[in-house]
Amino acid sequence: MADHSPVLLAAVSLLSALQMAYLARRVGWSRTAHKILPPSVSGPPEFERTFRAHQNCVECYPLFLVALWTCGLYFNEVAAVVGGLVYIVARQIYFNGYIKSTKKRLPGFYLTLAVFFTLALLGLSGILRVILHKYFHVHL
Amino acid sequence: MADHSPVLLAAVSLLSALQMAYLARRVGWSRTAHKILPPSVSGPPEFERTFRAHQNCVECYPLFLVALWTCGLYFNEVAAVVGGLVYIVARQIYFNGYIKSTKKRLPGFYLTLAVFFTLALLGLSGILRVILHKYFHVHL
Amino acid sequence: MADHSPVLLAAVSLLSALQMAYLARRVGWSRTAHKILPPSVSGPPEFERTFRAHQNCVECYPLFLVALWTCGLYFNEVAAVVGGLVYIVARQIYFNGYIKSTKKRLPGFYLTLAVFFTLALLGLSGILRVILHKYFHVHL
Repeated sequence: MADHSPVLLAAVSLLSALQMAYLARRVGWSRTAHKILPPSVSGPPEFERTFRAHQNCVECYPLFLVALWTCGLYFNEVAAVVGGLVYIVARQIYFNGYIKSTKKRLPGFYLTLAVFFTLALLGLSGILRVILHKYFHVHL
Repeated sequence: MADHSPVLLAAVSLLSALQMAYLARRVGWSRTAHKILPPSVSGPPEFERTFRAHQNCVECYPLFLVALWTCGLYFNEVAAVVGGLVYIVARQIYFNGYIKSTKKRLPGFYLTLAVFFTLALLGLSGILRVILHKYFHVHL
Repeated sequence: MADHSPVLLAAVSLLSALQMAYLARRVGWSRTAHKILPPSVSGPPEFERTFRAHQNCVECYPLFLVALWTCGLYFNEVAAVVGGLVYIVARQIYFNGYIKSTKKRLPGFYLTLAVFFTLALLGLSGILRVILHKYFHVHL
């Protein structure tokens, strides 16, 4: 089964999960650096930006996975993989920028949005094509 | 492969992901309206309810996806799709209600719970049936 | 299709989703016990630890699912199932410990980390094997 499965989508998913674990670790390091014991999430601005940067990544992560897999399964696996890799880079730019200042989160944020909506749109087009074919016998 | 895949489950997943992106956007609009700059998440009660409504949706979203797909793959795809669409509507009722008042979050919340546990229960029944068949050769 | 699908992975996923719903319920019970109305998330230390314990589970949950399924699909389903069950136990130890004190969250936390990275590493090894086979015709 594995040989016919979308192994590149799985690889990008696992890579993004490891990135998320790394970003969580960065929040932990920021806690240590600013001596903020859990469960507190308040502290100096730099810690709060680090914490919030990670939270935003957490909020977006399942949405990204859904867009990645629908694009990969119903549009094109390689397009989804390229989009997924750009998303991972965009998230890193976002995270690193946000720690420096609230404003510097924006370039990575806009790139994240662009990739997410591209993946979602390609996935949607593929899904509609398959639905038209499967349920309405319309071949585009 | 795509023609034999559960394309309706993928469609509902993508729709729910786009709804989650829209709800995140609503939090952003609430930030602008109440002039609350990130990373702060404190503000007037309406903003805090909007923020918390979105957080609750974020917490539940992966659980919903698991219940949707187990119901769709192991019980019935159409039942899962109907449940998924009701979940999306329930989440919107919850979110819009919560913004108005803490109490008005409840109807949408209870509907969300009912759909989630229905999907999970149907999924569980399907999984048990397949496990009995596959590993114990019991045909129900 | 269902008979050839990784039904044990689906079972563990659904079990973990139900655990997440239960942990969310525990936060609700803690709200009631300490009379903390939503959307507030501040209160006595025990409530704040309960809230944060749940948040940490929420942050990790999609990462766990990705590691579980990549390990199960590309390495070995039974190994993934065992890892998944240990993860569920580890999360419960973490949650119950964190409620008692910040320090008592650590044993469950380290066990969670160990299981996550084991699943991820096994998944990664399986993915690399399949990629080498499928795209480079290297058979390990």
